[in-house]
Amino acid sequence: MKIDMKQPILQKNDSIAAELRDRFAANHVYVVDLLASPGSGKTSTILATIDALRDEFNIAVIEGDIASSVDAEKIKAQGTAAVQINTGGACHLESAMIKRAVDVLDLERLDLIIIENVGNLVCPTDFDLGENVKVMILSVPEGDDKPLKYPGVFQAAQAVILNKVDTLPVFNFDREAFESSVKQLNPTAPIFSIAATKGDGVEEWATWLADKIRAIQ
Amino acid sequence: MKIDMKQPILQKNDSIAAELRDRFAANHVYVVDLLASPGSGKTSTILATIDALRDEFNIAVIEGDIASSVDAEKIKAQGTAAVQINTGGACHLESAMIKRAVDVLDLERLDLIIIENVGNLVCPTDFDLGENVKVMILSVPEGDDKPLKYPGVFQAAQAVILNKVDTLPVFNFDREAFESSVKQLNPTAPIFSIAATKGDGVEEWATWLADKIRAIQ
Repeated sequence: MKIDMKQPILQKNDSIAAELRDRFAANHVYVVDLLASPGSGKTSTILATIDALRDEFNIAVIEGDIASSVDAEKIKAQGTAAVQINTGGACHLESAMIKRAVDVLDLERLDLIIIENVGNLVCPTDFDLGENVKVMILSVPEGDDKPLKYPGVFQAAQAVILNKVDTLPVFNFDREAFESSVKQLNPTAPIFSIAATKGDGVEEWATWLADKIRAIQ
Repeated sequence: MKIDMKQPILQKNDSIAAELRDRFAANHVYVVDLLASPGSGKTSTILATIDALRDEFNIAVIEGDIASSVDAEKIKAQGTAAVQINTGGACHLESAMIKRAVDVLDLERLDLIIIENVGNLVCPTDFDLGENVKVMILSVPEGDDKPLKYPGVFQAAQAVILNKVDTLPVFNFDREAFESSVKQLNPTAPIFSIAATKGDGVEEWATWLADKIRAIQ
């Protein structure tokens, strides 16, 4: 006998995610689930995104980590509400964790929630968190072959951010090969090239996101 | 009722891993399970390690990937036996997969097997593959805070490789802070600094590994 463990876990996750999606919609809150490897610059990208959008929108961040709260501290230091979730070893966030985090946020007041998922290109892909979009970040040092090796996350994302493009001169990264692999897996997702810590290229990404937020308000 | 799904899965994994460990020992084959994030340079490190050790030892590589065989092709192009495992979505290797891969290798002839696990700092940590040591790689672009955020893998590793140290000048990476965090989590693991694609620092790591291989022959 073979028992499929994944199916019931995902069903429970999806039903809580559907509840969350209704709550977000009722409050006109746009939600981004941000996926990437460890160290690809998720927190820096969030900080740069907040900088670009804070004048127009009220933003909160939900930080998912195995352990520690260093990322939430960085966000709070910038004056933005941040809720830390420690998964206690789990390799991805689930909708039940988001539900607990959302309960401490003032949804009525918010326009945008950015969820920073656990650094992992595999496990978070299957889990609906009630978000409007999944966005993934790949950083240049990780290499242009990652779409071939982790196709699932590139297919699940509605937008792809290529981060750390300021380091292209020091890495052997074939941008055309990367973009062509992404387009094959996901023909509709835009690819934004940024250097989050320097703010380069953030405007185009922030403009895309701002249009999405405005559309549900 | 709460069912612990992880325990029975791990028990089955551990029992196959124990069988594998006996087979490896009987054949005097030393086995390294290599863990790291996507894009941290696992394959480059393996290629550099083979270069350093191929004159003395017979080496094979088991490549674990969600999809594709680009890494195994790189290894084979260098003239070393490589077996590709595609996990079909799974975020880590399990001992049953290694058993199938080992069946196509000539253990009697081999001295060293390097297993390249799926790029993931979380999930592979718990799975015994019958290896002698787990070794983890962190690359400089990932940031010095990773031991705080992914403590499990730093505790599970018997040696830590810091890769891409040639890019230290372009990243804000505090090497002392990194080494101090690693030492707190894992006081006995040596830390080797390398630039795998350039061969820098590989000798010290290769010497450490060669001593381990000789000790079981």
